[in-house]
Amino acid sequence: MFRTFLIACAMAPSALAAEASAPVTIVIHGGAGALEKGRYTPTEEEAYKATLSEALDAGYAVLEGGGSALDAVETAIILMEDSPLFNAGRGAVFTHEGKNELDASIMDGRTKAAGAAAGLTHVKNPIRLARAVMEKSPHVMMIGAGAEEFARRQGMDFVKPSYFRTELRWRQYKDALKKEKEAADEEKESDAPHDFKYGTVGAAALDAAGNLAAGTSTGGMTLKRYGRVGDAPIIGAGTFADNESCAVSATGWGEYFIRLTVARDICAQVEYGGKSIAAATTDVIHNRLQQSGGDGGVIVLAPDGSFVMDFNSAGMFRGVKQGDRKEVAIYRE
Amino acid sequence: MFRTFLIACAMAPSALAAEASAPVTIVIHGGAGALEKGRYTPTEEEAYKATLSEALDAGYAVLEGGGSALDAVETAIILMEDSPLFNAGRGAVFTHEGKNELDASIMDGRTKAAGAAAGLTHVKNPIRLARAVMEKSPHVMMIGAGAEEFARRQGMDFVKPSYFRTELRWRQYKDALKKEKEAADEEKESDAPHDFKYGTVGAAALDAAGNLAAGTSTGGMTLKRYGRVGDAPIIGAGTFADNESCAVSATGWGEYFIRLTVARDICAQVEYGGKSIAAATTDVIHNRLQQSGGDGGVIVLAPDGSFVMDFNSAGMFRGVKQGDRKEVAIYRE
Repeated sequence: MFRTFLIACAMAPSALAAEASAPVTIVIHGGAGALEKGRYTPTEEEAYKATLSEALDAGYAVLEGGGSALDAVETAIILMEDSPLFNAGRGAVFTHEGKNELDASIMDGRTKAAGAAAGLTHVKNPIRLARAVMEKSPHVMMIGAGAEEFARRQGMDFVKPSYFRTELRWRQYKDALKKEKEAADEEKESDAPHDFKYGTVGAAALDAAGNLAAGTSTGGMTLKRYGRVGDAPIIGAGTFADNESCAVSATGWGEYFIRLTVARDICAQVEYGGKSIAAATTDVIHNRLQQSGGDGGVIVLAPDGSFVMDFNSAGMFRGVKQGDRKEVAIYRE
Repeated sequence: MFRTFLIACAMAPSALAAEASAPVTIVIHGGAGALEKGRYTPTEEEAYKATLSEALDAGYAVLEGGGSALDAVETAIILMEDSPLFNAGRGAVFTHEGKNELDASIMDGRTKAAGAAAGLTHVKNPIRLARAVMEKSPHVMMIGAGAEEFARRQGMDFVKPSYFRTELRWRQYKDALKKEKEAADEEKESDAPHDFKYGTVGAAALDAAGNLAAGTSTGGMTLKRYGRVGDAPIIGAGTFADNESCAVSATGWGEYFIRLTVARDICAQVEYGGKSIAAATTDVIHNRLQQSGGDGGVIVLAPDGSFVMDFNSAGMFRGVKQGDRKEVAIYRE
């Protein structure tokens, strides 16, 4: 339905030389969705791009300093969680009951260790908790009040639920509620949730030691109910990383990303099908996801430093930094 | 570490003829773990085998009557949830706080629709709720109190938390708590949770229309804390089904099954690697899972009616019914 926007850049000429010469790289996204040109004013666009740029710089600085891919991913995501612009941490969308419920996950491509947390309401930086679950517990996934009890014992920063609230998101929530009510009155299905189901932040990084990592953090879908969880905290759906294949963070209509195990499927096509990350991503996003009726996008990073930022929605907040190359973008270009 | 127990049975001589001639089949498991011979008395063994046999018969009757693979999977799992013998529904293990918290998921291989629920404390049959999430909501996964609110609106059977409690599980819980305390006093890590982290029920079925389905239900790990969720409710980890490759339900040390996306990985090796389900399962269970330090097992069913029941633990409660063939087993044999 939309033409592909795709950057695929193989940096290393030979597979053998790849790992030694692979450039440290960070790729990020800030959500995909109905981002047609003109949706944002030039001032708003600049604000988004400035924050994406800042997140890239912060993550890249970690890598340049010899830090790990995991640290770079966490650093970039924390910056986007703390920004009110993105649907993660501060600025998260509201549930049907007017609350913010946050999910995140992270995975280490070197060890395949992973951590995830869902249904958080007081943890300032969900990606930090996902990492603590990975590194400080024998578990991979924790949910709800139990996850927050663990976070408290880990000494993580807690905030009042009102910290996550921004006036823009609150107005969007009220609008969505109103649209839902109007649709109910007219006995038709509301299209409001569809328009508001996007927005998630994520990062994938490759460090100087040749290790990959990926992470994802989200406030989920506006008007979500019943403890709904999307793909962001699901290893294999929203996040996957394996040094043997690739690192992926996804954003979009989470239900489809879970059913298709999008992040794992891209890496599996690389691992077992011998595809490039570009070919694997094209198949998953433009064939499988498209045919199933889902939409959204992914960032994908390979051990040789090649990367893809691809989506089948109108746009995706995204950026990459690798050596002298730095790009941020919102729309199809 | 243990010799493989494996049944692989290709029923159709040619791939082309496979779908038309594939026999309706149901495969089930009731958990894998440290099931050395002699762990159970002959009377206990008979009780387990009788319930496995009953679940096979109930699921197979659905298939023989022209029912769907989904219905067969749900029917067999409900029977095991209702039995106090297995760690799912009634007879679930206890959390660290002495509660029963239940998780389940189900997937339709025809449509790749899926449903999952986690952190349930009052829903009598978690697998029914997983199916309702799949069929009666736009979501794939719901957790905690929100999931139970949805279940209530769907008119599902609710029970008091005490319904799930059995005296055997309560004694195991008290023993595990005591072992944990002793270990803490001696400042060493307790091995109690390791011994009690198994037990999950699951089923995979192939119906007369050639459709696959899989489902999994569990009470999780004894002494689990902090809202820990294992692989059972994670699509791609504990459950996966796709008519194009295979249907899988897993049981074992859930953290490893999530990291390795075990259910999806087996189907991905079939789909992209051109492997048989037997070869794919051997690689995932005996190479990847084994090397990572995890243990447990899977049941796998292919569109041609071939199936595998394999594990790297000492035993796995399991059974299959296909035409005149019916088998139930516990130990390696």
